[in-house]
Amino acid sequence: MRFTLIIVLLPAVLALCQGCESVSSGGGSFSKKAINVRLSELGITLPKVTTPVAAYVNTVESGNLIFVSGQLPIREGKVVFIGKVGRDIELSQAQEAARLCAINALAAIEAQLGSLEKVRRIVRLEVFVNSAADFTGQSQVANGASLLMQQVFGDAGRHARMAVGVAQLPLNAAVEVAVIVEKK
Amino acid sequence: MRFTLIIVLLPAVLALCQGCESVSSGGGSFSKKAINVRLSELGITLPKVTTPVAAYVNTVESGNLIFVSGQLPIREGKVVFIGKVGRDIELSQAQEAARLCAINALAAIEAQLGSLEKVRRIVRLEVFVNSAADFTGQSQVANGASLLMQQVFGDAGRHARMAVGVAQLPLNAAVEVAVIVEKK
Amino acid sequence: MRFTLIIVLLPAVLALCQGCESVSSGGGSFSKKAINVRLSELGITLPKVTTPVAAYVNTVESGNLIFVSGQLPIREGKVVFIGKVGRDIELSQAQEAARLCAINALAAIEAQLGSLEKVRRIVRLEVFVNSAADFTGQSQVANGASLLMQQVFGDAGRHARMAVGVAQLPLNAAVEVAVIVEKK
Repeated sequence: MRFTLIIVLLPAVLALCQGCESVSSGGGSFSKKAINVRLSELGITLPKVTTPVAAYVNTVESGNLIFVSGQLPIREGKVVFIGKVGRDIELSQAQEAARLCAINALAAIEAQLGSLEKVRRIVRLEVFVNSAADFTGQSQVANGASLLMQQVFGDAGRHARMAVGVAQLPLNAAVEVAVIVEKK
Repeated sequence: MRFTLIIVLLPAVLALCQGCESVSSGGGSFSKKAINVRLSELGITLPKVTTPVAAYVNTVESGNLIFVSGQLPIREGKVVFIGKVGRDIELSQAQEAARLCAINALAAIEAQLGSLEKVRRIVRLEVFVNSAADFTGQSQVANGASLLMQQVFGDAGRHARMAVGVAQLPLNAAVEVAVIVEKK
Repeated sequence: MRFTLIIVLLPAVLALCQGCESVSSGGGSFSKKAINVRLSELGITLPKVTTPVAAYVNTVESGNLIFVSGQLPIREGKVVFIGKVGRDIELSQAQEAARLCAINALAAIEAQLGSLEKVRRIVRLEVFVNSAADFTGQSQVANGASLLMQQVFGDAGRHARMAVGVAQLPLNAAVEVAVIVEKK
């Protein structure tokens, strides 16, 4: 697997999550920007998507919905956030991991639709956090992915969500994120 | 967050779950009652829904489907069933927790649709049980939520379901329930 | 619950999963075979489906989607793969367990649609693996279910997927698999 370099200069943005609401209410001019402009302002280059080696695919379209397979925090072919959150990985890293999963999901969606401009709505994020037994901050971890969706799509990026702490994840990844999208 | 008082006089009903089938086969007259009458007969007042502080929303509509975010057993702004089922929480409490999650989901659905009468079908419940390593009664816990849906909606409340035991949940909640609904 | 005997002569097929892609690219003549012929070539007899005793159902249809409840590795009414993968159960058994869950899902889909020929696409598999704390092979376990779908449906069996390691499953089952299907 080969991924192009992703420059993830995670600003203080995740720490500001109490202020998330203002991202969408920033509204008017926001929605006029092209999504690729927003991505570039966020310092995000979408990775090249590769076909899974196993017996499944990255995305399936059914009606207007696109189901994106569970994404791991992989960069250039390697899982870069490994271990249990609250023990091996701290909260801020786990948020970065969730954000990276979401970036990989965006790459898969773009590969499916041709352009992220064809996204009508991010419908749901399913966030699985590889959790130490006493780590209860799954919602904050998931905000790493949720906030990215809102930064990229504005109100159309606000989604339903479930976030749970699991016992393990493939390749000992810290986070896995699956996404359901509605296309235009 | 502020929630109105929920009077949850959980009758022996959960213990009777072997007899669930008869709830729906009670049929004929059942379907003629307004849903708010049934709720009031069950002693349930739906809580006031508040917007999540984080970067997601309670519900997203896509086509005829409504995706309800994972609900915790929150009452008046507090998680009231905390800890691992099978260790800190016993089965009957966990069933009550699942039922409370389902009540919170109903409140979110009502807020989205304006009225629960617009529900055509509860499509799926996803039940995540914060489980001690040796607790294997996730199905019985989930029945607390499933039975409520059937009591409120009759046959339209019978749903597909998955129930699993997770390592942790946000805020150390005992149960989390996400719901997919079809509207009329 | 009573299930008819399933002859599961699991060939070396699961071990060959690196070669999965060739299953679908074997293409042309593949798609002309009736699904029941393929099942019989695979040595699979679908079990008889029984209504869940609890307050939910095996399948719910909504629009063109069918949501199949989480299936356990049950054969003739008994969970036959029990315990945590990586501790009580080894990888190859867990793959067989995932395959058995998928077979039970097929039986439920057939019961819903009347015939598996009415499946347009397997949309998504959700694979929950009862995992020892250090077991990170959830993707390989899930391949047991994924590969079956591809063997039975060809390209229409290729799906989106999420696979996670959970802390426990109902009845201490080793694997649980939920499925979303699109009908024709």
